[in-house]
Amino acid sequence: MNPTFDVYDTTLRDGAQQEGMNLTVADKIAIAPLLDELGVGFIEGGWPGAIPKDTDFFGRAARELNLKNAVLAAFGSTRRADKRAGDDPQVRALLDSQAPVVTLVAKSDVRHVERALRTTPDENLAMIRDTVEFLTREGRRVVLDAEHFFDGYRFDPAYTRSAVVAAVEAGAEVVTLCDTNGGMLPRQVTAIVTELREALGHGEDSAYRLGMHAHNDSGCAVANSIAAVEAGATHVQGTLNGYGERTGNADLVAVVANLELKDGRTLLRGGGIAEATRIAHAVSEITNISPYGRQPYVGASAFAHKGGLHASAIKVDPDLYQHIDPRAVGNDMRMLISDMAGRASIELKGRELGFDLTGQGELLTRVTTRVKDLEASGYTYDAADASFELLLREEITGERPAFFRVESWRTIVERAGSRGAEATAEATVKLHAGDERHVSTGEGNGPVNALDHALRQALTAVYPEIEEFQLIDFKVRILDTDAGTDATTRVLIESTDGSTSWSTVGVGPNLIEASWEALTDSAIYGLIHAGVTPR
Amino acid sequence: MNPTFDVYDTTLRDGAQQEGMNLTVADKIAIAPLLDELGVGFIEGGWPGAIPKDTDFFGRAARELNLKNAVLAAFGSTRRADKRAGDDPQVRALLDSQAPVVTLVAKSDVRHVERALRTTPDENLAMIRDTVEFLTREGRRVVLDAEHFFDGYRFDPAYTRSAVVAAVEAGAEVVTLCDTNGGMLPRQVTAIVTELREALGHGEDSAYRLGMHAHNDSGCAVANSIAAVEAGATHVQGTLNGYGERTGNADLVAVVANLELKDGRTLLRGGGIAEATRIAHAVSEITNISPYGRQPYVGASAFAHKGGLHASAIKVDPDLYQHIDPRAVGNDMRMLISDMAGRASIELKGRELGFDLTGQGELLTRVTTRVKDLEASGYTYDAADASFELLLREEITGERPAFFRVESWRTIVERAGSRGAEATAEATVKLHAGDERHVSTGEGNGPVNALDHALRQALTAVYPEIEEFQLIDFKVRILDTDAGTDATTRVLIESTDGSTSWSTVGVGPNLIEASWEALTDSAIYGLIHAGVTPR
Repeated sequence: MNPTFDVYDTTLRDGAQQEGMNLTVADKIAIAPLLDELGVGFIEGGWPGAIPKDTDFFGRAARELNLKNAVLAAFGSTRRADKRAGDDPQVRALLDSQAPVVTLVAKSDVRHVERALRTTPDENLAMIRDTVEFLTREGRRVVLDAEHFFDGYRFDPAYTRSAVVAAVEAGAEVVTLCDTNGGMLPRQVTAIVTELREALGHGEDSAYRLGMHAHNDSGCAVANSIAAVEAGATHVQGTLNGYGERTGNADLVAVVANLELKDGRTLLRGGGIAEATRIAHAVSEITNISPYGRQPYVGASAFAHKGGLHASAIKVDPDLYQHIDPRAVGNDMRMLISDMAGRASIELKGRELGFDLTGQGELLTRVTTRVKDLEASGYTYDAADASFELLLREEITGERPAFFRVESWRTIVERAGSRGAEATAEATVKLHAGDERHVSTGEGNGPVNALDHALRQALTAVYPEIEEFQLIDFKVRILDTDAGTDATTRVLIESTDGSTSWSTVGVGPNLIEASWEALTDSAIYGLIHAGVTPR
Repeated sequence: MNPTFDVYDTTLRDGAQQEGMNLTVADKIAIAPLLDELGVGFIEGGWPGAIPKDTDFFGRAARELNLKNAVLAAFGSTRRADKRAGDDPQVRALLDSQAPVVTLVAKSDVRHVERALRTTPDENLAMIRDTVEFLTREGRRVVLDAEHFFDGYRFDPAYTRSAVVAAVEAGAEVVTLCDTNGGMLPRQVTAIVTELREALGHGEDSAYRLGMHAHNDSGCAVANSIAAVEAGATHVQGTLNGYGERTGNADLVAVVANLELKDGRTLLRGGGIAEATRIAHAVSEITNISPYGRQPYVGASAFAHKGGLHASAIKVDPDLYQHIDPRAVGNDMRMLISDMAGRASIELKGRELGFDLTGQGELLTRVTTRVKDLEASGYTYDAADASFELLLREEITGERPAFFRVESWRTIVERAGSRGAEATAEATVKLHAGDERHVSTGEGNGPVNALDHALRQALTAVYPEIEEFQLIDFKVRILDTDAGTDATTRVLIESTDGSTSWSTVGVGPNLIEASWEALTDSAIYGLIHAGVTPR
């Protein structure tokens, strides 16, 4: 256990407010153990009573979850104005959730008290006091989230302080200072937390913690969280992948990684930061929100290097070119192949793909030259590892694996009638594989889809492994756009066999032909990695 | 002009290092005026001499760009060890670019000097001094980017200082302190910039500026940039949409918006921050990298509220629920359950196109609903004014101008033979115009090109005006990418009649059908604006 620091995750509650996110109870039950594995101390599960799904979550969590690091927190609100806490069904639902921790949101900005809550400043303080007292008397640990704290402090510091004092005197173990609108800058956070602690006489031996809850509207959620910690907060809230309403909440992994790896503090239980990349990606799989490649620490690009200039130096001294060892957060360094790449980065990339090219100067020069030529004509390999590997294999062995030989293909798209009628697409592929000629016709909702279907169908008899493959992404980029539809087209295709995925590229003035190139590369790469040899 | 602050954009150089980004010269020529419109003072265009595309960019820029706020900067390196600056072809290429500003990257971390550059600390200082002197003598303004400055400073502060001094004494007008590996935290930036300025005796009246170049590896690029400015830097570098290698560079819009809107400083020329959202999105269209919804200030979700609890309070008192007025950055508050904002912007947009819709509540509601439905299914009207105008005309008059009636169309793409053989594309269009049936077949290097040729040819007899029209841009974006080639496709087409240009959009699961929709919209819009009536 970690007595000196609280890490409080609110992915399942505040994170779920993100536009387009819709977590089921099963999703939440699947995410909670991942947060626990990361080593957070608190998992805020939702608002039981107010949201029926969340009531179910706490019911199932009590039966099904076996958390080793974290405790569950139920989120709710202070009692209604002019009611007793014990008579407020919303407050009773928090007790009924059986969560050992209850987090109460309370107004601390006097303008919100008057204009949104429509009650008096004094009654709001009484609501805080009563609700905290009631819950602590019932044996719950209470966190008070002081909503709009920073905006409120800048308008009327005395009132926000009295809200904090009301909570603390009533027995709250944490008061979280919330930048609800997310607009603070670090220096403002530093100044306000410092002033507040001085005014309250808050110190390391105080019986309560001060916490920070930041949103990223000014692009400073991570920095604001750190600023609060440096000013004396010992409880930080955030979400996995920075999920949340508007621009999102503070990205908990970035906050924790900065504080643990750069400040030498210990925040997580069980050293979970080394698992952060895997956990962040696993959570994306469940939320079904594509991971953000540029996300600090855990993004797919976070330790990816493109510059040809530095590749040779990176090979010798990786620490000079990265702010931390990527393994500290479970991530990896990657070399990207691009027209800025030189022989050194091709060599590194080869090693990453399992080809030792050390000392093979002539081969390296040949590959580098070919990559540069191809990139000049529109190819890009930094997003198409699989096509690069095929190119490398071809240069090493002198040929491409001959899984099939294409005789011809054709695709037809047509529409009869004007607006409203639907177009149809079909494709025919003729190829030779396994000493036989295969002719097949596929339909689809577009020409590439139809070609994909026809190609698979033609190959299935000889290579049944191909049935496992599936297209998961298809991107088109028009280059040299000044030429209109005469422009060069680049197609990137991502495929999967259910466990790993790979990307291929095709380029040409004809979009369909470029797509065909990427489709066939994808099939060949998939077959090689399925351990198939040409039949 | 703004004598007190430099805003230096490096989207076209450092931003282009982003994984998956590959800007053509035409892309760069299209992005530069948008940066200029935003009001940055400097646009770093690339590395002439080292990258052939960048050499071309500066050539074309000199002929084609007419910038009102910004000057172009050419990026390059200090001279090679043991050469004269004037004899170094890389340095000469910087002069040849004709850019008035040259930004030199130089080592300031002594470990990089020894291990990556493999020269002596003294020779590195001489390289800085000589190259800056040579370029200033040739009449160039010089910015020195002190690479790995912060890491270097923490290892050996005296050496980093001597690199700064060498540049300043040789005539550099700015020395940019680079957090090249992006790992700094704001408090470290504050401390180092403050110490450095004290040691150098740098003040407001110094003849040179100190600048900041931040990367986002610790999630603090925006905060680090602001920390440097608060500590006395008066030059900030960054990129649009935070593009850049790994986790990206400092997001220039977020940095500037924080400093202008919250600190009351003036950074941009011409108040461009109010156009930031439109410009950031326009740049994404050119880079073809999907905008990030949660991006501070300009993201589609940045001011989106999941109504519910606070909806009525937000409507009455929006300022209590957002950190700034979204109009200050050209963004909009969105209530995810209300269409109030929509009607107002449709009315504004109509006015922009010459339709006064004041007081036409029912029409506005109808158009708003239709636009919302269409946008939900993948259309976008931000980048397709002409399609929006056709939609608006249709709602006002109840019909679309009947220039022609399509009977059917068909396109065939085929290839005989394997790799190496070329595919052919042809299209046949059958339509009725001017009381006659027209059947024509066009060829092209792809299906859309062939359809475009066939459509024009079928219409020319009745509408010879169409011969003036020309396609100048064609963009494809795949939406819902999880579905692979089953995904929805959005096509944007830009056309011109030689004097003005217009954009149309088509959407559908079938790429060819979506293209056809955009092609026909383009023809109709063009004919209307050529003053033609249906014949």
